[in-house]
Amino acid sequence: MEPRQARIGRLALLLAMLDEGEEEAALGQLEALAWRYCQGRVGAMEPQKIVAAIETAAKRHGVVDGGLYREMHALYHAILEAVHGVTRGQVELGDLLRTAGLRFAVVRGMPYEQPNEGEWIAVALYGTIGAPVRGLEHEAAGLGINHI
Amino acid sequence: MEPRQARIGRLALLLAMLDEGEEEAALGQLEALAWRYCQGRVGAMEPQKIVAAIETAAKRHGVVDGGLYREMHALYHAILEAVHGVTRGQVELGDLLRTAGLRFAVVRGMPYEQPNEGEWIAVALYGTIGAPVRGLEHEAAGLGINHI
Amino acid sequence: MEPRQARIGRLALLLAMLDEGEEEAALGQLEALAWRYCQGRVGAMEPQKIVAAIETAAKRHGVVDGGLYREMHALYHAILEAVHGVTRGQVELGDLLRTAGLRFAVVRGMPYEQPNEGEWIAVALYGTIGAPVRGLEHEAAGLGINHI
Amino acid sequence: MEPRQARIGRLALLLAMLDEGEEEAALGQLEALAWRYCQGRVGAMEPQKIVAAIETAAKRHGVVDGGLYREMHALYHAILEAVHGVTRGQVELGDLLRTAGLRFAVVRGMPYEQPNEGEWIAVALYGTIGAPVRGLEHEAAGLGINHI
Amino acid sequence: MEPRQARIGRLALLLAMLDEGEEEAALGQLEALAWRYCQGRVGAMEPQKIVAAIETAAKRHGVVDGGLYREMHALYHAILEAVHGVTRGQVELGDLLRTAGLRFAVVRGMPYEQPNEGEWIAVALYGTIGAPVRGLEHEAAGLGINHI
Amino acid sequence: MEPRQARIGRLALLLAMLDEGEEEAALGQLEALAWRYCQGRVGAMEPQKIVAAIETAAKRHGVVDGGLYREMHALYHAILEAVHGVTRGQVELGDLLRTAGLRFAVVRGMPYEQPNEGEWIAVALYGTIGAPVRGLEHEAAGLGINHI
Repeated sequence: MEPRQARIGRLALLLAMLDEGEEEAALGQLEALAWRYCQGRVGAMEPQKIVAAIETAAKRHGVVDGGLYREMHALYHAILEAVHGVTRGQVELGDLLRTAGLRFAVVRGMPYEQPNEGEWIAVALYGTIGAPVRGLEHEAAGLGINHI
Repeated sequence: MEPRQARIGRLALLLAMLDEGEEEAALGQLEALAWRYCQGRVGAMEPQKIVAAIETAAKRHGVVDGGLYREMHALYHAILEAVHGVTRGQVELGDLLRTAGLRFAVVRGMPYEQPNEGEWIAVALYGTIGAPVRGLEHEAAGLGINHI
Repeated sequence: MEPRQARIGRLALLLAMLDEGEEEAALGQLEALAWRYCQGRVGAMEPQKIVAAIETAAKRHGVVDGGLYREMHALYHAILEAVHGVTRGQVELGDLLRTAGLRFAVVRGMPYEQPNEGEWIAVALYGTIGAPVRGLEHEAAGLGINHI
Repeated sequence: MEPRQARIGRLALLLAMLDEGEEEAALGQLEALAWRYCQGRVGAMEPQKIVAAIETAAKRHGVVDGGLYREMHALYHAILEAVHGVTRGQVELGDLLRTAGLRFAVVRGMPYEQPNEGEWIAVALYGTIGAPVRGLEHEAAGLGINHI
Repeated sequence: MEPRQARIGRLALLLAMLDEGEEEAALGQLEALAWRYCQGRVGAMEPQKIVAAIETAAKRHGVVDGGLYREMHALYHAILEAVHGVTRGQVELGDLLRTAGLRFAVVRGMPYEQPNEGEWIAVALYGTIGAPVRGLEHEAAGLGINHI
Repeated sequence: MEPRQARIGRLALLLAMLDEGEEEAALGQLEALAWRYCQGRVGAMEPQKIVAAIETAAKRHGVVDGGLYREMHALYHAILEAVHGVTRGQVELGDLLRTAGLRFAVVRGMPYEQPNEGEWIAVALYGTIGAPVRGLEHEAAGLGINHI
């Protein structure tokens, strides 16, 4: 396995950004690495809906164990860090009269060569942010990484 | 030109993230769109070095006109927004005993169908952030977009 | 035209701060410069109401073109920057049990001598912030400026 | 009175953290100093509820004069500073899908030897923060101090 | 005395913003109110230089008593709040490759009708912020108010 | 073991706050729990010195394994969160002309009843923050907790 294939954040970002038909290489890497992951979409004017959508997807697809606080804590902070990239300064959406339409990906794996570095989790967001008026929006992205 | 090809932030992120040999499609799109762009690398414990490196590259490659404040102002805020994604909370590096090694891309083009939406600029960052000790680091990314 | 007359931020702040009968000189300068502007008032416990009130006034008075994202994007960021001056740390009002009563002014013009610096927009806020109890409040002000 | 006994922030933190039966020494110091104080509990997903609960308790127990803006202003900023310690970055709870269960203490006294340093107020918070699911939470604390 | 004359923040902002020859009315009000104040200028890439310049001026002109922590604490927080308006998000200048050239005013007085609201202090900033290149800058302003 | 004894954050705060002779009960609990911990002091105008002092102490006393990024990452974020409580808004000291003199404690243990919640780390800070002039300072505290 080359180091290139173990870049967990890059894999998450590609999953969140690439269109259907383009993800094949990334998905192939994830299969080869036997890493757990999930993908989804969420549109929201409330940051908590983004958090909830990602947490629900990650639990449903077995990326994290929803009954283990340790795992939910790791995921939560990775999500918040990714949201920082999307909101760029104030972690607020509707309170600042803006909305976000995002694709997300969560990847869980062992990105470091040393085995006792253990598992890490990456949350990537990509989509649009803007006024609650169609078209008055531009792209946004974020990436959060944590040990799990 | 399909809308998909005009996603300026996605193009910038791909340029910052993809390895040599993988960028062909993205570079082909930029050629077809006749958009200006530049790429570079910067490693720094001071956020101002990241700002300076990107500004210098963007001026040198003619992506912005360094003598026009309007353009430098647009670029500056796009850079700061991208740095938010990398630093996730406090726009500080060495002051918090951490360092970043980043690849960056700046893309300038007309991403909207309506011609009078004019030009926009995207700044993407991708790399690692961590302690000033080799290996004690994880990936980070950021994207900033502004009208220019 | 002397440089003094082209200080767009100062003109906006004066419009937001001066009382009726005191604004004559500032309004005269705006007439002489043929710059677009608007004034208004907004009281709110939700930051988004401040954003919405200013956007609505600026569109209604033709200071910006509400159908052009480029202009709304420039205005939005100028508003947010002005709100930072009012909230001083966390862009929150009711969530922190405080309310604001503000006068605002938006000015659009060409403040730089070099003609290709083009148009800029200034948003100024002045009023009071405090507990949702009459009298338990002090003054606050903010200024945001952006290229448009 | 030794200087050690006049550490107003430490007294407030101990009142907020110690269990029944452990507070005796701290309460004894407060009696000896003849300082005003109050204690309470608040659980909330909205920061404004924390602010309101502490303000109400401090007024009811005569720690501050609710009709005097000067005193409410001092208390308000001390509360906000304490909340920063609990939220560690973004002063938000439910908006980030988290809730807090806190014990609080407010202490008002003269902690400096020089008499004309006058009165100061300390607000301490201690409890848990986490997901709105029982058990998915960890401890948090905060301390804010202001002249009054 | 009409309420209009007691707006301490507005007086500070006018002192910081008005040009020589325009300040007469504001200075007349301050004389009539017998309020203490000072004015000055500071150019800096380091926020601490702005803090130091204002503190030094306020002490030298007797607006505050430099030996009394209570007063320096009130002034310090008023300065920080004013700096928030200038920096609009991150209280950083040179670390983000920008510099500020500011005029400042500090006013100390009793702005409330009720006498036991006591003294308050206002710090106003007005000037330019931008790249460390002459001309690549726009206006900025800030206002901080505190009880003293 | 009662749940009360496993409050890792409270133990860390008590170690950082209590004076010599008062820590006996807390140290006894740590012994009974067989948890690793360390204590220390740091005075600094630069946040990175606080980070470095705590990291060095935690490595030297075997609370974390300095060669394992996973552990250093957990500790780093716990430190940053504790520093938020001390700085209350902007994670800056000398840049805002202030200095901090702090006692710190790091505790590592298993605070949850469910064994697979595994180990967590708590960083507590307590001391003074203020102007770089002796006496012009007040108390400050912070607590950060992370899974490790």
